[in-house]
Amino acid sequence: MRGSIPFSCYPENCTLASAAVLRRNLFLIKCLDGFCCRSHSQRMQGTQSAAVPAAEADAEKTIQMITPALDPIRYKGQAGKIAVIGGCREYTGAPYFAAISALKIGADLSHIFCTKDAATVIKSYSPELIVHPVLEESYSVRDDEKASVSAKVLSEVGKWMERFDCIVVGPGLGRDPFLMDCVKDIVKHARQASIPIVIDGDGLFLITNNLDLVSGNSLAVLTPNINEYKRLVEKALGCEVNEKDGNYQLQLLSTKIGGVTILHKGKSDFISDGEAVHCVSTFGSPRRCGGQGDILSGRFVLIQLLHQQIFYYKSYLNYFDNNSVAVFSSWARHHLLITNGTIGKSLSNPMVLGCIAGSALLRRAAAFAFQDKKRATLTTDIIEFLGKSLEEICPAD
Amino acid sequence: MRGSIPFSCYPENCTLASAAVLRRNLFLIKCLDGFCCRSHSQRMQGTQSAAVPAAEADAEKTIQMITPALDPIRYKGQAGKIAVIGGCREYTGAPYFAAISALKIGADLSHIFCTKDAATVIKSYSPELIVHPVLEESYSVRDDEKASVSAKVLSEVGKWMERFDCIVVGPGLGRDPFLMDCVKDIVKHARQASIPIVIDGDGLFLITNNLDLVSGNSLAVLTPNINEYKRLVEKALGCEVNEKDGNYQLQLLSTKIGGVTILHKGKSDFISDGEAVHCVSTFGSPRRCGGQGDILSGRFVLIQLLHQQIFYYKSYLNYFDNNSVAVFSSWARHHLLITNGTIGKSLSNPMVLGCIAGSALLRRAAAFAFQDKKRATLTTDIIEFLGKSLEEICPAD
Repeated sequence: MRGSIPFSCYPENCTLASAAVLRRNLFLIKCLDGFCCRSHSQRMQGTQSAAVPAAEADAEKTIQMITPALDPIRYKGQAGKIAVIGGCREYTGAPYFAAISALKIGADLSHIFCTKDAATVIKSYSPELIVHPVLEESYSVRDDEKASVSAKVLSEVGKWMERFDCIVVGPGLGRDPFLMDCVKDIVKHARQASIPIVIDGDGLFLITNNLDLVSGNSLAVLTPNINEYKRLVEKALGCEVNEKDGNYQLQLLSTKIGGVTILHKGKSDFISDGEAVHCVSTFGSPRRCGGQGDILSGRFVLIQLLHQQIFYYKSYLNYFDNNSVAVFSSWARHHLLITNGTIGKSLSNPMVLGCIAGSALLRRAAAFAFQDKKRATLTTDIIEFLGKSLEEICPAD
Repeated sequence: MRGSIPFSCYPENCTLASAAVLRRNLFLIKCLDGFCCRSHSQRMQGTQSAAVPAAEADAEKTIQMITPALDPIRYKGQAGKIAVIGGCREYTGAPYFAAISALKIGADLSHIFCTKDAATVIKSYSPELIVHPVLEESYSVRDDEKASVSAKVLSEVGKWMERFDCIVVGPGLGRDPFLMDCVKDIVKHARQASIPIVIDGDGLFLITNNLDLVSGNSLAVLTPNINEYKRLVEKALGCEVNEKDGNYQLQLLSTKIGGVTILHKGKSDFISDGEAVHCVSTFGSPRRCGGQGDILSGRFVLIQLLHQQIFYYKSYLNYFDNNSVAVFSSWARHHLLITNGTIGKSLSNPMVLGCIAGSALLRRAAAFAFQDKKRATLTTDIIEFLGKSLEEICPAD
């Protein structure tokens, strides 16, 4: 399928069942174009200077651009289906925050794949989520069962995988060795199936020790906080975090991991896919309650919304081409152009756009929540303001 | 019992325990009249033209007509007792939405029959529901136990069945083969006991592959969404969905399945029992979050409210007749006549009226919720507006 799409998948002819696969294929084709296919060496050549500026991203415009219009003729699932891989005996809040945030932003369906112990609790938080108790931790598996249980876990998650537009790996995952091994298989499977993937929390612990799992995957996003970023830099670049030339180091880190998109969370958020560094620093809250990073992961459904937007834009124009790499990317560029001619070249990467939009929306919602609750602000309060924040930027009507 | 009702069941003489049975018998008798007893061939003759108009239903008037007045002398259960058959290890939200919606509209009691794994979670969503952990999935039953477990499941559900005015089969049921076989028995039992039945979600998967379970059951309602409808058309009619002659195809589909009522959900909702096609297109929300269909199922308590209304109307007039087929149907027609002389003939089918009312109420509640929450609208938000929506159409005072 790579590089070509059969006639049956033309927007006007595709079946409902194939819609998600089609969108991913379209996206994959786009990824094969320009920004994704450049070799690492080319990228490195472009980043030899330590003086890398980070331009403040026009986040509101990005959100307005990528958020699809609501249309009564659309059916359930078309506004995004995401899955969170996380939730174990110890942690249940993080996967819940990630999954419910996606729904609050506008995704239609939000699944969680977690351990049996976590499932009952997470389900009880909200009837809106679909929770699959399929993961296992070492304590519940005998050594002689491990191979078969591991295969079963992959099979259980794998049979759903094609339905998702994006998966989030890591919130509340824990660090159980057997569970980590199972999640490795899931990450590999997602990559083979060309499913966009966001790595956060304990998922970053796994990735940091197994960089090959995401290296060169242009559909992968890493969202490290300050400590996770430190470990990532040490492992990938073999040095300490360099505050002075932070932008250059972020760009270098992304390039070193083959162009994955990195969202480095902090007082300001910095984003790079190795091409340039973008910054989101508006709004925000001085509160640092646990769980905000999970909202950010969940909000990556915005990445998917961009896929949708590109798809519908093409569909609207009733234009398609089997040699679609150039055409599709040109339409994507056109789409960007008509929203703001000043947006730079590297913003053609939907993963970067998703990071910018996600970062800005969380910061705005956190600011609203802090205004309302001050020191008592919790993650749940921030989630309640996601809808209002999006509505202010991009009215639904 | 069919076609005759013993003296002890006359309204003025019936005991409390027999009230539900009586209402169902009254309803069954009505169903044996006119619209339900026509042969399939007669129906087919009436639908040879592909140009089938779908008149916009007068939904508000329908709701006003069928919603019973609140009266202090009435006792618990008289405003409707419904049961949802659904809820398994993976899905707990859907049966909750269906059951709580019924209560929010005005039903007195709402039961859920689900698996043991689902029961604890569903109970935790709300103390308002009565949750029976009686269903079993394959993983928890040995092969040599299956026959006895299956019999026990049917017995457990069966002993409650007579008390319900309507059962909803399918929300969050899952597709486990053993569970599906048990539910087949429950559906057969409900039919034998003349219990009105609404099939949704995974129940439609079961029915689509076993059309004989509902074929010819005028007390059955199917509520497919776009994908479920597609599978139903393919299975029952052996063709693709025909958008151009959609009304004709819907009418044909209903006729092919022996006159079951079908509510085809979409941008507008279309309803047919093979006699005519009705449309509900007012209000609505462009959000397509998972769970809205479950509200619709739950709201079918309105069908029951209609039964009640017919029952009370008869009771008020203190009139009854053992040869009640013609008499009861004539009273039902009179009941419809005094509310709006313009309502057409096929609107004498309570299942169709329930569909119209249910569809309109969900759409109004969804519109209110969307007005309030915009893109962040979730199913829980819509449920919170069911009461306000009904109050506006049909004030309780």
